Amino acid sequence: MTFFEKLGNLIFSKKTYLCVGLDPVWEKIPEHLPRTQEGLLEFLLMIVGETKDYVAVFKPNFAYFEVLGASGVEVLKELIQKIPQGIPVIGDAKRGDVGHTAQMYARSVFETIGCDAVTVTPYQGEDALRPFFDYTDRGVFVLCLTSNPGAVDFQLPDLHLQVAKKVQEWNVSGNAGLVVGATRSDKIAAVRKISGQMPFLIPGVGSQRGELKNTLLFAEDGSKIPYLINASRSILYASSGEDFAQQAGNAAKELRDQINLCRSFL
Amino acid sequence: MTFFEKLGNLIFSKKTYLCVGLDPVWEKIPEHLPRTQEGLLEFLLMIVGETKDYVAVFKPNFAYFEVLGASGVEVLKELIQKIPQGIPVIGDAKRGDVGHTAQMYARSVFETIGCDAVTVTPYQGEDALRPFFDYTDRGVFVLCLTSNPGAVDFQLPDLHLQVAKKVQEWNVSGNAGLVVGATRSDKIAAVRKISGQMPFLIPGVGSQRGELKNTLLFAEDGSKIPYLINASRSILYASSGEDFAQQAGNAAKELRDQINLCRSFL
Repeated sequence: MTFFEKLGNLIFSKKTYLCVGLDPVWEKIPEHLPRTQEGLLEFLLMIVGETKDYVAVFKPNFAYFEVLGASGVEVLKELIQKIPQGIPVIGDAKRGDVGHTAQMYARSVFETIGCDAVTVTPYQGEDALRPFFDYTDRGVFVLCLTSNPGAVDFQLPDLHLQVAKKVQEWNVSGNAGLVVGATRSDKIAAVRKISGQMPFLIPGVGSQRGELKNTLLFAEDGSKIPYLINASRSILYASSGEDFAQQAGNAAKELRDQINLCRSFL
Repeated sequence: MTFFEKLGNLIFSKKTYLCVGLDPVWEKIPEHLPRTQEGLLEFLLMIVGETKDYVAVFKPNFAYFEVLGASGVEVLKELIQKIPQGIPVIGDAKRGDVGHTAQMYARSVFETIGCDAVTVTPYQGEDALRPFFDYTDRGVFVLCLTSNPGAVDFQLPDLHLQVAKKVQEWNVSGNAGLVVGATRSDKIAAVRKISGQMPFLIPGVGSQRGELKNTLLFAEDGSKIPYLINASRSILYASSGEDFAQQAGNAAKELRDQINLCRSFL
């Protein structure tokens, strides 16, 4: 089974499209937790524990671990090992480099760190993405239209559509997906039209306040394509008190339900 | 002084435009060195020792360290600490992500790892690059036209010129540069025309056999702009015997001389 077949089964059996991003920031982590490698891991595992029933996947963001140096990389690896079996992990790494270096990055994310899927950047073209696609049992989400203001600089008006078209052509193993931001839901229909059945990873509905209903309408497009709605900060930092994990669980449940409710009225 | 003012002084006083890329691959490292963290560091420090008189900067490529996990990150950090004072280090990380995550990547490369400059990818636009530019004493080389085959997929015919133009506009602190591959020397003149005095980091003259003379002609364009010609594999793996470091030194000296000779006949 490909990563996306597994993901589709999981979404339909567990009835959730939610992806929770794990972006730990010292300044936002509850004060009662120690500022150590152990404190960080404890914070994340408590979040995982309280949200796991509501998520399809977790998505740790590499930047927030790398900034802590080698010990951050150790926490990331241990975190992934301890995420319950059956919940896939997307390594949000936004990697992208030429041929041989891309092989090293792919090996690093999939083998050394142990992720089931990855985010990558398309600027350098096919030979920069191919080593990721070559891991045919893993998922590869290519940046297409991002949720940040700077998406207008190069991605719009046309580049994101060129990327969708090319990735669709390159997707011979059925393991490619696209990152499409919910803050630009008016553009998602066009990307869906070009990209056929490719799954979307959709950030921007939480703190960035993307528009949920249209996002779902255009991402789904009447078919049973798996896709993921990501939220990070709105769940991780739902509370900064001792009840942070419980509040994160509540926020995750609420967003899962909101997505499902929205879907049922599309 | 900005990074590029320092770099310019260094290039003119030391009379070298050479950047040596440090991309360590187990399979290519001489067999007599142990396959350990210490063996890797020894290999790299011996290369640094024998090439340091001929280079303007060193450029470790993060992928080759990350693939070894936390211990690879430790080697990278120790390597950078041990590169002789006065030789700047470009972290070849090709990072790129939205606002707050970009801040974490910038802090990671400049503070945690300790690089003087970095390579970044422009796909997500200004707010993904700004946190790097905000380190005004560091250099930020933005991917523009890369040396790999996949550059034709999105960068050509126009995107690389749009990137050059935008980065030129965003370069308010004078710390932005561009990555422009020597394998496309016919396109370098147009990038130079748009980008004014921005320094170039130019890969592709070593193993990738880019055309040196035209590259220099168009990169320089009659002015005293600092730029860098990078070679990695052709120097690092000049020999796989016990004389590997000495041969790397010879290869670095030869390329430095070839660049200077070429420049004197432009």
